Amino acid sequence: MAANARIRPIESVTHFDIATDVLICGYGGAGAAAALEAAAAGAKVCIIERASAGGGATALSSCEMYLGGSGGTALQKDLGIHDSTENLLAYLHEALGPYGDSEKIRCYAEGAAAHFDWVESLGVSYKRAVMHERTVVPLSDESLLFTGNEKSYPFNTIAEPVPRGHVPSKEGDEGGKIFMDAIMQRVDEAGVDVVNDCRALALLADNTGRICGVIAKHNNREIAIRAVRGVVLTTGGFVMNEAMTRQYLPEIHQYAVPYGNSYDMGDGIQLGLAAGGQAINMDQAFMSFPLYPPAKLTYGLLLNQRGQRYINEDAYLAQLAHYSCQQPEQKFYLLVQEEDYEASHYLERAPLIASGNSIAELASEAPFPPGALEDTVDYFNRHASEGRDPLFHKTSEWLKPLNKPPYALLEYSASEMRAIIMPGTNGPLIFTLGGLKTRCNGEVLDADNHAIPGLFAAGRATAGLPRTAKGYASGMSVGDATFFGRLAGRQAALSQ
Amino acid sequence: MAANARIRPIESVTHFDIATDVLICGYGGAGAAAALEAAAAGAKVCIIERASAGGGATALSSCEMYLGGSGGTALQKDLGIHDSTENLLAYLHEALGPYGDSEKIRCYAEGAAAHFDWVESLGVSYKRAVMHERTVVPLSDESLLFTGNEKSYPFNTIAEPVPRGHVPSKEGDEGGKIFMDAIMQRVDEAGVDVVNDCRALALLADNTGRICGVIAKHNNREIAIRAVRGVVLTTGGFVMNEAMTRQYLPEIHQYAVPYGNSYDMGDGIQLGLAAGGQAINMDQAFMSFPLYPPAKLTYGLLLNQRGQRYINEDAYLAQLAHYSCQQPEQKFYLLVQEEDYEASHYLERAPLIASGNSIAELASEAPFPPGALEDTVDYFNRHASEGRDPLFHKTSEWLKPLNKPPYALLEYSASEMRAIIMPGTNGPLIFTLGGLKTRCNGEVLDADNHAIPGLFAAGRATAGLPRTAKGYASGMSVGDATFFGRLAGRQAALSQ
Repeated sequence: MAANARIRPIESVTHFDIATDVLICGYGGAGAAAALEAAAAGAKVCIIERASAGGGATALSSCEMYLGGSGGTALQKDLGIHDSTENLLAYLHEALGPYGDSEKIRCYAEGAAAHFDWVESLGVSYKRAVMHERTVVPLSDESLLFTGNEKSYPFNTIAEPVPRGHVPSKEGDEGGKIFMDAIMQRVDEAGVDVVNDCRALALLADNTGRICGVIAKHNNREIAIRAVRGVVLTTGGFVMNEAMTRQYLPEIHQYAVPYGNSYDMGDGIQLGLAAGGQAINMDQAFMSFPLYPPAKLTYGLLLNQRGQRYINEDAYLAQLAHYSCQQPEQKFYLLVQEEDYEASHYLERAPLIASGNSIAELASEAPFPPGALEDTVDYFNRHASEGRDPLFHKTSEWLKPLNKPPYALLEYSASEMRAIIMPGTNGPLIFTLGGLKTRCNGEVLDADNHAIPGLFAAGRATAGLPRTAKGYASGMSVGDATFFGRLAGRQAALSQ
Repeated sequence: MAANARIRPIESVTHFDIATDVLICGYGGAGAAAALEAAAAGAKVCIIERASAGGGATALSSCEMYLGGSGGTALQKDLGIHDSTENLLAYLHEALGPYGDSEKIRCYAEGAAAHFDWVESLGVSYKRAVMHERTVVPLSDESLLFTGNEKSYPFNTIAEPVPRGHVPSKEGDEGGKIFMDAIMQRVDEAGVDVVNDCRALALLADNTGRICGVIAKHNNREIAIRAVRGVVLTTGGFVMNEAMTRQYLPEIHQYAVPYGNSYDMGDGIQLGLAAGGQAINMDQAFMSFPLYPPAKLTYGLLLNQRGQRYINEDAYLAQLAHYSCQQPEQKFYLLVQEEDYEASHYLERAPLIASGNSIAELASEAPFPPGALEDTVDYFNRHASEGRDPLFHKTSEWLKPLNKPPYALLEYSASEMRAIIMPGTNGPLIFTLGGLKTRCNGEVLDADNHAIPGLFAAGRATAGLPRTAKGYASGMSVGDATFFGRLAGRQAALSQ
């Protein structure tokens, strides 16, 4: 009975422009997956999309999916890689910590290998080859790579490291386009009605409170859509909604660069809130500090403005970003020796702010407190020469003393990164990891954790599998959106 | 039109047990202040309270109020202390940073001095004397003290330090009881109807969506209350609701100790969400690490498990807690020399885990990486002997080299603190700083930032003035709750 512009009584509608069983709002990876499953379950399905074409953030991504377990996906198995569900669960629990939703983690870990089969069945190709380098996306055509913190401390002490990033095979970074082209073709074949340039403005509720349609804006006029079985919100996150990022991510908002689809405006989250839903995990975002490639920059030392190290430099790019941006004033630097230097592939400008033939010489030009850098490097070198990193446990693969001058100090502070941003490449790029609270089957939950009848959601309009940058692995979000999108579509189709 | 158990149509009610103009849910500081103002504006007022008596978290507190500006409160002025609104604003903006609500900050800063006059007019006494020691609450009877980070870096570079903690005068820590006794007497005199043992279960809405009453549970039966002008939610925060702290504060939930009234269960937040309101700042909490008194422990060095310092030790107890609990595994230690040691007043047990006649000897028993502590102390001493702390800018008042053995290392890790907790004393105690999004006048806002007609809130059921532990000052919460409680009560009385 809450009165607001986003919830309207269905009795107020005199004419329906569209009538369907399941209405899906948002045609990205989650919406497409939901539509296919709802149609497969026998429902008449309609998708509305705010943009002029489907694709969403998934189409802009590399379409990495973080998959494994059940002994291994077909791709892992073909490459001789074993990945038990227990091993995947151990990794996910360590990665997500107290932020994780245990039910979603279990559901995902148990179903991820079968989900890969489903993706291949859509007509997406994966080359049976592993990318072994420390990189973000294979620009060659290998389909499997490490995309998280699997090989770094403390993860390497908790779960056996296996590569779980599954990427459609093609040279270059077009995985998202390949995937969306394939699934949109299947959606089309399934007879789903797609309406582009159509934004959901309000939910329609009957007098029992059940959600049973939407008022949308299409070609600049309001239309009414009846959805007998339910409405699925797959409208994406809210990273492009400045008022929302300012409100929910006040610190990160100040220095981060939104990364996503221009219609990641939080529409579905706002609609769900209006219906009495809960929005959770709203303070968390994926963040990226792609220090690598080139991988050899990993030999350097990351330092805060106090000249202290603060992380094992061999961590995954999201964990690097999380801890880097926790440093005072979001200032951080890389100390590197010449033999390990090569221009960053993603951070197109990294200001060189000091150099020298000794650490002391470099320090005299550096912004650290007097003597702090010398102490830090001396401590690091003393132990690295014995093959140890007692402070941060950088793995032996990337551990060596810095004793071959000349040395350089590069600034990667968040403000610097933002100032030099190149769209789609430099960091700290963010997208949001908070949204509607849902069950695994997509039901949107109210403040008492009761399902709101007729309302479902998936993808970044929800708080899903990935919950923190600290434990993020590339592929968690597209994996989650398509996996739980399918479950939400199926549940909506069966709802009444 | 959202259907859920917490929103019901008023047409479904056939008999009202109580009829009033303004209904206030929750009889703590915010609710009492709202009731007085609503009654003063001519409204018939009823308060329902879930406990068997009024008081709320305010009665359990010291009733410090963080007040100043306008040249000074009557108490500040009588003590010769000038405090401009600009100075107060500068401090609050630095303290709250991007979390702050600019409108609430301005409204509060401009009205805080007059708010003090109002508190005195209730019959609460303040002794014209300043407590100069670094302490939490004056157990002697002085009424004014420093209760935030005013004197420490970087605040001391941004605003002139003035004491702003106003505490009712009495030996011992009974300020909350004194204040609530006084205001409840005034509420009684104003003819306000108070119903104890009465919990709001659901809001009643008319067919325009306006909130116009409540279904409550009183003496184990449901009663209906009609509130013609509006409902004010002053039910407190959610720190006692384990499901909510787990959901909204997943990391802090793991190690913190809830501090508040047993009915700080988030009732009002849940009701507001059900009505389509927004809950914001839900990931933030006040936290306490009362390292002092005795103040002289401030001479020691706080260290994380890497043997690194991480803060200026002269910071306020909430900032100490915030940065301490950001350290790896929430482990932190104090290194102190014998002449500065005295048992902590609040942390009743602080395990001594290492000692020695030299730093090296102590380090051999300590849990730090080899050599790390020696480096840290050497660096600190080198600069402290020159009167500087280039890493953290500890003020000269608390800065001296650690060179008089023997030395001791005490563990204060969050888990240790929790294990040794004494109710009401030890830390890290927390209470929540997130809640309904409201305007200064108490109107509860929906996802589009439109006021929900007939619904108001104040106190810790809302996101108010205080928003982070990092910038918290004792007195911000009671100050906020009573100040904005008054505005919400007045607005509700004038609403129709």
